[in-house]
Amino acid sequence: MLPTPKKFFVTAGSSEGKNPLNAFDNALLKGKIGNLNLMRVTSILPPGVEYCPDMEIPPGSLVPTAYGYIISDVPGELIAAAVGVGFSNDTFGVIMEYSGKCSEGEAAKAIERMLIEAFETRGMELKGTKIAAAEHRVENIGCALAAVPLWY
Amino acid sequence: MLPTPKKFFVTAGSSEGKNPLNAFDNALLKGKIGNLNLMRVTSILPPGVEYCPDMEIPPGSLVPTAYGYIISDVPGELIAAAVGVGFSNDTFGVIMEYSGKCSEGEAAKAIERMLIEAFETRGMELKGTKIAAAEHRVENIGCALAAVPLWY
Amino acid sequence: MLPTPKKFFVTAGSSEGKNPLNAFDNALLKGKIGNLNLMRVTSILPPGVEYCPDMEIPPGSLVPTAYGYIISDVPGELIAAAVGVGFSNDTFGVIMEYSGKCSEGEAAKAIERMLIEAFETRGMELKGTKIAAAEHRVENIGCALAAVPLWY
Repeated sequence: MLPTPKKFFVTAGSSEGKNPLNAFDNALLKGKIGNLNLMRVTSILPPGVEYCPDMEIPPGSLVPTAYGYIISDVPGELIAAAVGVGFSNDTFGVIMEYSGKCSEGEAAKAIERMLIEAFETRGMELKGTKIAAAEHRVENIGCALAAVPLWY
Repeated sequence: MLPTPKKFFVTAGSSEGKNPLNAFDNALLKGKIGNLNLMRVTSILPPGVEYCPDMEIPPGSLVPTAYGYIISDVPGELIAAAVGVGFSNDTFGVIMEYSGKCSEGEAAKAIERMLIEAFETRGMELKGTKIAAAEHRVENIGCALAAVPLWY
Repeated sequence: MLPTPKKFFVTAGSSEGKNPLNAFDNALLKGKIGNLNLMRVTSILPPGVEYCPDMEIPPGSLVPTAYGYIISDVPGELIAAAVGVGFSNDTFGVIMEYSGKCSEGEAAKAIERMLIEAFETRGMELKGTKIAAAEHRVENIGCALAAVPLWY
């Protein structure tokens, strides 16, 4: 089997780029995850995982990551992305991602509502959250993204 | 290398949610794969893989999975998703996913046609199929999804 | 942790199909990666990775892959996809993907510009590139894709 991750952190970033993929790449770099190979996952924090905000991951590593992003080419538009981890008392957590044409505060509020629903559906008590969000006012082509990298 | 999966099952589920991602999350829970970290793959059943419908996978595991889904916020709309595994006689199989504004029966029929084409293109004989499908009549925001998790 | 890939190649292909997913599947087959489980990654070439154009990977393997594609059902439309690897002198490289309604030459040019921006942003010198591209004139439903599979 693939080894289950043991560590995580949360991050967010936003940037302009000369085209959509470079805007995405530049936003990843702002979030300090631009030199990794993110492998997108749906979005559970494994039990016992440890919060390691200053983790250094070697470039090119395969990093399971839950993330959300938005890219816009509408000058003046405000875009934002947020992620949130919801913690349980003694078992796994749930990760939610959101992006939209809104402020970073609105994206973070959306995440809180989503985590509440995710825990209600599971019949689990939500003991705390950790949220990261970023917003961006588009000049030409911009990206906002937020991510929860999982690591070992 | 990443270890090649040895087991699989098929599943499908559908649900409402207060927003698109929670609808997706709730549909995953209905399909009993909501507490996993699905890693999406294109879509081959490795040779020799065993069908294990009652497999229990620990929460937060990284699970290579072929899946299809549709999310709709059009009240009254019928949505459906289906997956199908096509088996060969003695080598790998092929997985196909479909989702659309249709019934679960129509989605399953689409999968059958897709598997026939996938085997014809490969010059392989299709010896059998295993299909899972789910449909959903949207109330406010709904999701239908179907998945083939691969495991060890 | 997941093992970091040690080899790569670049490929591209295009095809018709009776539906969008079969067009995608057929284009993967043209690119000789149709019998693998591609796991999509954002898009770094790990340091020290070796170029192996004739690598044979067993069917059903989990293959970390950066890829771009476009599917069109507009008869007569020209579609193309390209990928490019940008190499540094002594550390990791960067992979970019592009797809659009254009020729394969235009897609390859877009990739060159994207790699230049990716290296400028990182303050790294771009020492060389390796690009693969494919184009397709749509008959009914067509797909063009380009990929950088990473392997061991």
